[in-house]
Amino acid sequence: MEAGNMAQQAFVEHLVDPAENFDQWYVDVVQQAELADDAPVRGMKVVRPYGYRIWELIQQTLDARFKRTGVENAYFPLLIPKSMLEKEAEHIEGFTPEVAWVTRGGDKELEEPLAVRPTSESIICPIYAKWIQSWRDLPLLLNQWASVVRWEDRPRAFLRTSEFLWQEGHTCHATAEEANERARQMLDVYRDFIERELAIPVVPGVKSESEKFAGAHRTYTVEAMMGGKNWALQSGTSHDLADHFGKVFDIQFLDQDGTRRYAFNTSWGLSHRTIGAVVMVHGDERGLKLPPRVAPIQAIIVPILGRKGAAKSVLAAARKLRDDLEEIVRVRVDERDDRSPGYKFNHWELRGVPVRIELGPRDLEANQVVLAIRDTGEKLTVPMAELATMLPELLDTIQDRLFAAARTRLDTLTVDVTEWETMAERVATNAGWNRVWWCGDAACETRIKNETKATIRCIPFDQPGGEGTCIACGGTSTAQAIVARAY
Amino acid sequence: MEAGNMAQQAFVEHLVDPAENFDQWYVDVVQQAELADDAPVRGMKVVRPYGYRIWELIQQTLDARFKRTGVENAYFPLLIPKSMLEKEAEHIEGFTPEVAWVTRGGDKELEEPLAVRPTSESIICPIYAKWIQSWRDLPLLLNQWASVVRWEDRPRAFLRTSEFLWQEGHTCHATAEEANERARQMLDVYRDFIERELAIPVVPGVKSESEKFAGAHRTYTVEAMMGGKNWALQSGTSHDLADHFGKVFDIQFLDQDGTRRYAFNTSWGLSHRTIGAVVMVHGDERGLKLPPRVAPIQAIIVPILGRKGAAKSVLAAARKLRDDLEEIVRVRVDERDDRSPGYKFNHWELRGVPVRIELGPRDLEANQVVLAIRDTGEKLTVPMAELATMLPELLDTIQDRLFAAARTRLDTLTVDVTEWETMAERVATNAGWNRVWWCGDAACETRIKNETKATIRCIPFDQPGGEGTCIACGGTSTAQAIVARAY
Repeated sequence: MEAGNMAQQAFVEHLVDPAENFDQWYVDVVQQAELADDAPVRGMKVVRPYGYRIWELIQQTLDARFKRTGVENAYFPLLIPKSMLEKEAEHIEGFTPEVAWVTRGGDKELEEPLAVRPTSESIICPIYAKWIQSWRDLPLLLNQWASVVRWEDRPRAFLRTSEFLWQEGHTCHATAEEANERARQMLDVYRDFIERELAIPVVPGVKSESEKFAGAHRTYTVEAMMGGKNWALQSGTSHDLADHFGKVFDIQFLDQDGTRRYAFNTSWGLSHRTIGAVVMVHGDERGLKLPPRVAPIQAIIVPILGRKGAAKSVLAAARKLRDDLEEIVRVRVDERDDRSPGYKFNHWELRGVPVRIELGPRDLEANQVVLAIRDTGEKLTVPMAELATMLPELLDTIQDRLFAAARTRLDTLTVDVTEWETMAERVATNAGWNRVWWCGDAACETRIKNETKATIRCIPFDQPGGEGTCIACGGTSTAQAIVARAY
Repeated sequence: MEAGNMAQQAFVEHLVDPAENFDQWYVDVVQQAELADDAPVRGMKVVRPYGYRIWELIQQTLDARFKRTGVENAYFPLLIPKSMLEKEAEHIEGFTPEVAWVTRGGDKELEEPLAVRPTSESIICPIYAKWIQSWRDLPLLLNQWASVVRWEDRPRAFLRTSEFLWQEGHTCHATAEEANERARQMLDVYRDFIERELAIPVVPGVKSESEKFAGAHRTYTVEAMMGGKNWALQSGTSHDLADHFGKVFDIQFLDQDGTRRYAFNTSWGLSHRTIGAVVMVHGDERGLKLPPRVAPIQAIIVPILGRKGAAKSVLAAARKLRDDLEEIVRVRVDERDDRSPGYKFNHWELRGVPVRIELGPRDLEANQVVLAIRDTGEKLTVPMAELATMLPELLDTIQDRLFAAARTRLDTLTVDVTEWETMAERVATNAGWNRVWWCGDAACETRIKNETKATIRCIPFDQPGGEGTCIACGGTSTAQAIVARAY
């Protein structure tokens, strides 16, 4: 089997070697694994069923996590009047260059242009102002699953497209402290979700002033290290908006002591770029490697029909196996009759299915199957009767192994750097992330960006303490920052 | 309790009597039950958490039904280039008056305006053309959960808004017969879903030429009778598009016999107007009456704290009851300390919660609770130990009873009418639906519309056979049609 498998590979799939050209490899994998495709609209992509199924699994588990913290879902209008978007000055300044404007409805010019939502603070806050009267109406904890539009001329599927799928949470609180706690809490939901479900370790921290969300008091972020060039991907952000939006949109409430006060807000979002992260963190030269918890298909049964006499019984056994297993794992049989087993092996490896179950006439006689494990490449023979108990454990092991590998990579490639030249060299050679002392000065941040193209990804929550010397100016610094190039 | 309850009612809720002004009652219920609210954007509404939770329950069960028929979900761009929307002539003619146009992206005027999707055939079909090469790629069965924009100046929450939530299925087939079968199959999925989950009986049938979807070969519909004025609501439609879009968008495939052929399409959609249907079919003068299967809260526990000494143990018992029941039903405790039991009774009746569980100090002593049933108003005392087995059965009974009541209403108020005057009179007095013989002529259909304001809702699949006399022209007719006013 293996020989035929290798021989067929050449004409089955054509992936560029990720070590040679990681960006092209990403494009190839997304296209060939049928996660997404180009659309006849500039900057936009189609999310294909296989990619969308990953998004559905992400939605399920993330939505359950939100609800456990008391958040409910709602839906707010897609279109936002210009005057409303303009109310918070920093907010509109940040988003103007990216907004798509509706100027005609039916055959009429609109009196006021409407923005296709780039994010929803400016439509949600005025509505909250109406709903919130008393301290008893707080906290208000809502989330929306939707798409947003931010104009983009050079799209990359999942990572950067003019329209993307996401969720945006918007909460409202009586005190600054409570809002900040909620922002931190939701960041921790993201951290937990990304680490456990996507098997991607992240560094949680706070953004610098220049990198924070337009209009926020403080932006928290979880940053993940991608494969290939070891760049960072901002994978989820949570904003403590303080009372900036509360004041601008007049969200006032009568407090328990009879005083009228402005409310404090948070917002937090995670998008389908996390699917891009899954591709880039775990994939290899054979294609995707999906963490079992978000794999649309966790085990693919490939019947190896053999000579004519056996074909019928092998196929029947494969179907029975599926029926027995489908309550336990997401399993399917590849019944295509115009494709060889070798072709199918490559097909499902490219698509990152964690476990392949091969079933041939001899296996059937021996009441066994051969398992091929996607991430290690190992093969093992297993009695059919043991599959139902063994498979879930195996999937957990794979999930843990993917996370451990990514964790090792992140830890190994994140290096404490004290010399400017070392940092510049590491950035230029895509050597990994740099943990550096930073004095907090914007000028030093700008110098890093201008001279190396890397940015301060975050000031991690996890700090060594003590003082150090700023990598840029040599001044006294009380905190370290992560410096890396980013998507 | 009952006396206090009635006394409080006046200042708790202010619903117009549905028998006096059904339209205003609808507005009041939607607003006061917090299903939806006005938005600061013309024609649009906010779907509030309680309304959105109903939509989530609808999505869950409908999505599972789609998947059982082999349909997968995907996501296609929100914005559609003008040239693409214009390709199918009837299609663009039908939708032009309702389209919102994006003409600016960022700070630039766009070379070509982009339509905010009013429906997605014209963006999905060109993509299908790329994906479909061979008969082996067929059928292609995709669905998308999204929102669409159709300009609307006089919005009514859920029923008619410039933006609405929906799903749109788009399939592609090798033969005309198969496409037609799929269109019929999905209509039957809608029928089954609306009848079983929403407890609303529907009349399935085919639309007249003038009422069909712009660009369709044939439109199937399920029509439901609302309460109050007994008008019809088109509750889901499924279109056999034949090869209209296949030819326009050049969806060709190589068939098994080596011939290149055009593919045949269907599309089918159901929107959040079904929430409006639930309100209008089941509601009464006390507010919503939710079918248990789509009720966000199926049972609400109202602790009646009594004198100070008992309060603590009653509340503890209420919480324990919730913990015991929450795996079985969607249950919550109303713990508000600033509201009387009577207020809470009205509050949850207005919101249509099927079962209220009252628990007071004496009930606690007797190890029992008092159940109040929303649809019948009856009260019964039940031993606490029996609740876990009794509640699911009770909810099923309520679900069946709501359906039976709506069924009786639909059957009673749908009348065979042979005289024009009778029909005109019945339409003018909102007496119900009219089953009439219709010759099929467009002129007769127009006369009905112009002279009575009613429309032909559908030609039901279920026909008596034989021949009759057209209600409008007296000509020979082989089929009956449903004539009614519609939302």
